[in-house]
Amino acid sequence: MTISPDVISRLKAVLGEGGWSQDPDRLAPKLIEWRDRWHGSTPFLALPKTTQEVAAVVGVCAQTGTPLVPQGGNTGLVGGQIPLGEVLLSTERMRAIRDIDALDDVLVAEAGVTLQAAHEAALEKGRRFPLDIASQGTATIGGIVSTNAGGTAVLRYGNTRELVLGLEAVLPNGEVWNGLKRLRKDNTGYDLKQLLIGAEGTLGVVTAASLKLFPVLVSRATAVVGLDEPEAAIRLLARAKDEAGGAVEAFELMGRRGVDFVLKNIPNQRDPLSEVHPWYVLVEIASGEPMAAENAMERLLSRALDDGLIRDAAVALNEAQAKAFWSVRENQSAGQKPEGATWKHDVSVPVSRVAEFLNQATARMEALVPGARVTAFGHVGDGNIHYDVIRPDGGDDAAHSALRGEGSRIVHDIVSSMGGSISAEHGLGSMKTQEARRYKSPVEVAALAAIRQSLDPKRIMNPRVLF
Amino acid sequence: MTISPDVISRLKAVLGEGGWSQDPDRLAPKLIEWRDRWHGSTPFLALPKTTQEVAAVVGVCAQTGTPLVPQGGNTGLVGGQIPLGEVLLSTERMRAIRDIDALDDVLVAEAGVTLQAAHEAALEKGRRFPLDIASQGTATIGGIVSTNAGGTAVLRYGNTRELVLGLEAVLPNGEVWNGLKRLRKDNTGYDLKQLLIGAEGTLGVVTAASLKLFPVLVSRATAVVGLDEPEAAIRLLARAKDEAGGAVEAFELMGRRGVDFVLKNIPNQRDPLSEVHPWYVLVEIASGEPMAAENAMERLLSRALDDGLIRDAAVALNEAQAKAFWSVRENQSAGQKPEGATWKHDVSVPVSRVAEFLNQATARMEALVPGARVTAFGHVGDGNIHYDVIRPDGGDDAAHSALRGEGSRIVHDIVSSMGGSISAEHGLGSMKTQEARRYKSPVEVAALAAIRQSLDPKRIMNPRVLF
Repeated sequence: MTISPDVISRLKAVLGEGGWSQDPDRLAPKLIEWRDRWHGSTPFLALPKTTQEVAAVVGVCAQTGTPLVPQGGNTGLVGGQIPLGEVLLSTERMRAIRDIDALDDVLVAEAGVTLQAAHEAALEKGRRFPLDIASQGTATIGGIVSTNAGGTAVLRYGNTRELVLGLEAVLPNGEVWNGLKRLRKDNTGYDLKQLLIGAEGTLGVVTAASLKLFPVLVSRATAVVGLDEPEAAIRLLARAKDEAGGAVEAFELMGRRGVDFVLKNIPNQRDPLSEVHPWYVLVEIASGEPMAAENAMERLLSRALDDGLIRDAAVALNEAQAKAFWSVRENQSAGQKPEGATWKHDVSVPVSRVAEFLNQATARMEALVPGARVTAFGHVGDGNIHYDVIRPDGGDDAAHSALRGEGSRIVHDIVSSMGGSISAEHGLGSMKTQEARRYKSPVEVAALAAIRQSLDPKRIMNPRVLF
Repeated sequence: MTISPDVISRLKAVLGEGGWSQDPDRLAPKLIEWRDRWHGSTPFLALPKTTQEVAAVVGVCAQTGTPLVPQGGNTGLVGGQIPLGEVLLSTERMRAIRDIDALDDVLVAEAGVTLQAAHEAALEKGRRFPLDIASQGTATIGGIVSTNAGGTAVLRYGNTRELVLGLEAVLPNGEVWNGLKRLRKDNTGYDLKQLLIGAEGTLGVVTAASLKLFPVLVSRATAVVGLDEPEAAIRLLARAKDEAGGAVEAFELMGRRGVDFVLKNIPNQRDPLSEVHPWYVLVEIASGEPMAAENAMERLLSRALDDGLIRDAAVALNEAQAKAFWSVRENQSAGQKPEGATWKHDVSVPVSRVAEFLNQATARMEALVPGARVTAFGHVGDGNIHYDVIRPDGGDDAAHSALRGEGSRIVHDIVSSMGGSISAEHGLGSMKTQEARRYKSPVEVAALAAIRQSLDPKRIMNPRVLF
C-alpha cells in the first residue's frame, strides 16, 4: 500500500503545524502493540485537535480513497489499532472533558480523554463512571467506545454499550454526526450510536461521548471464597444475585494454578485463604444503604458454608485487605507470563455452561499437549473466561506456539457449540477477524458487510478489521 | 397500492390452512388503532406459526417487491403497526416461551408472547422481567423489541434495548438470522440486534428474543410527595439516587390538574395527600436487603421535609396503599380523556432541563390557546414527559384539534432546542416520521436511510415508517 505525496500534502495542510508527524521516534510507540505481538507502519500520523480537524482528515481520505486507522490509547489486544501502511489517526490531543452534570448524571468527554481521567472527573462531582478495566490509565474514551470495552463491573452496570448516552463521530464520508445527546429515552429511528459502539473504527471516528454516571455507593463488601469446582461458583453466583438483589458488583473466578503463579512470580502477594482450594471466587457486593452489602455478604457466605456449597471464605476487614484480594485477581495475567508461551482466549459462554466448558476444554487441551498448564480466570458472572493454555513446565516455547492455531481452534469450536463467543470483550481486530468468519452465520456476515458498504463504500476505515 | 392475486396465492400456499385470513371480521380489530386514530386496510393477513413460515412470507414479498407491515399486540400509539394496503403479518400465533433459565437469568420468548405472560413466566422461576408498561397485557415481545419500549422502570433497568441479550429475526431478504444468544459479553462485530431494536419492523421481523431477568426484590417503599414546582422534583431525584444508591425504581411526576381530572373522572380514586399541592412525585425504591428501601425512603423524605425542598409526603403502609398511589399515576391519561380534544406529546429533555421545558412550553401553549389546560406527567427520572394540552373548559374540540399542528410544532421546537427528543418512547410510526425529519440532521437521516437501503433495497418492510 502506498499513499501518494499529494495526499500527504493535503493532510498536512488541513492539520497545520503540530497537527501531524512523520518523525520515526514520535511514531514508534504507536506502532507497537503493548504485548509486542503487532508491529505496524504508517507514512503519516495525523494528530487532530478538534472534531473539525478529524473531519478534514477523513474527508481527504474519503475523496482520495486513502485507508485510515484510528487509534486511542493503544491498549487493544487484537491489533485493531495498529496500521499496516494506512494513515494513522491518533486522538491523543482531544483531551477535553466538555461537560459534567450531576443532575443529568452525564459526563461528556472527547475521544482522547483517558478512562482514568473520566473516573476522576466523575468522582469530583460525587459520581462514578463504572467501567473498570486493567488498562484504564491509558485506554481512552474513543477506544473504549469503539471496542465496547467490558471489564469487571459489567455484571451490574453493563458493557460500554450500556453506558453511552450519545456520541459525536466523523462518518466515513467525512461528515460530522452530532449525536451527543444526554437523553435516557429517544425513539426516533435506528440507534446509530449503537452501531458505532464496538465497530472498531470501521464506521467512523468517535470524537466524543456522553457517558452515564452513577452514585458512589457507601456500603461495600469484598470476599474471597474457596471452592471445589466451577459448578459451585455458578450456583453461588445465583444465590449472590438473589441475596443481594442485583447489588453484586463483581464475581471473578480463579483456578488454584493461577493463584500459585501469582504467589510465585509477583512480589508482595498473599495467599487469600489459609488453606489451598482448587478454585476461588472473588465476590464484591455494594449498596447505597449503610451495612447492606456487609449484611448480604455475611448471609450469603454463612449459608453457603452451612450447606457445603463452598469450602472456605474470608471477608476483607478493610480496604487494604480488599485490595490484596483484588491484587491476586488482577495479577493473573502478569503472574503466568514468566511461565512461558501461552495460548490466550477471551471467550464467553452462557453462565450456566461455564463449568461444562472448562471441563471439556481442559480435557482436550491436556490431551493435545500432555503437561500443558491451563489457567482460567475472569468475569464468570458474565460467562466471560480468560482461558489460557501455558506450555508444560520446562517445555519449549516455540513448540508450544506452533500448536497455537490447532489448540485455539478446539477451544473456539467448543465455545461455539455452546452458543458462546470467541471474543467476549477484546473485539476482533486484525487478529480474530478471520477466525470469526468461521463461526458467524453467512446471513449475519452478509448483513454486517452490507451495512459497512452502505456507510463506507470505499472501505477506507480500518479496512483490514471486521467484515 | 394493489397486490396481485398471484402474490396472494403464493402467500396462501406457504402458510397453509389456518395460516392466513381475508375475513373482514377477523381483520377488523387489527386495522384499528386502539385510540381510534388510525384505520387501515390490507388485502391479506398472514398468520405464521413458525419462524420458517415468517421467512417464507417475507421471501415471497422480497421476490415480488410486495410491501409488508408486521404487527404484534397492536398497542402502538403512532400507527406503525397499521397497514394501508400492505400485507399484514401478525405474530399472534407465535406464543411459545422457548426457554427460561434461572442460572443464565434469561427468558427466550417468541414474538407473539405478551409482556404479561413473560412477566408471569419469570416470576414462576423467582425472577423478574422489569419492563413495565400500561399495555402489558396485550403488548407482545416482538412489538416491545421493535419499538424499544420504555415505561416506568427505565430509570433503573433501562429501555428494552438494555434488556435484550439476543434476537432471532427474518431479514428483509427472507433469510433467518439466528442471533438468539444469551451472552452478557460478545464483541464480534456490529451488534445487529441493536439495529433491529427500535427499527419498527423496517429491517426485518423479530421472531424471538432472549431477555435478561433480574432478582425479585424483597424490600420496596412507595411514596407520594407534594411539591411547589418541577425544579424541586429534579433536586429530589438527585438526592434519591444518592440516598438509595441506584435503587430508585420509579420517579414519576404529576401536576395537580392531572390529579384533579383523575379524582373527577375515574371512580374509586383517592387524593394521595391530605392537602392540595401544585406538583406531585411518585417515588419507588426497591432493594434486595430487608428494610433497605424503607430506610432510604425515610431518610430521603425526612431530610427533604426538614430542608423545605418538599411540602408533604406519604409513604404507603401496605401494598393496597401503594396500588392506590400508582392508580392515580396510571390513570393520568384516562382521567383527562373526558375533558375533550387534546394535543399529546411524548417528549424527553435532559433531566436537568425538565423544569425549564415545562415553564417555556406551558407559557407558549397558554398564549396560543387562552384557557388551554396543560397536563404534564411521566417518567421525569428519565427526562420523559407526556405533555398534553387539553382544550379550554367548555371549548370546542374541533377548533382545538385544528391548532394541533401549530401547537405541537412549538412544543417540538422547544424540545429540540434543549437537545431533547420528539418521541421519547413511542417511536415514529406513520405519525411522527415526517415531523422527525425536521429535527434530525441531514447527516443522520442519510446514514439511517443508507443502512435501510443496504438491508432492504426494495423497501418492502413497513415502507411508510422511518427514513
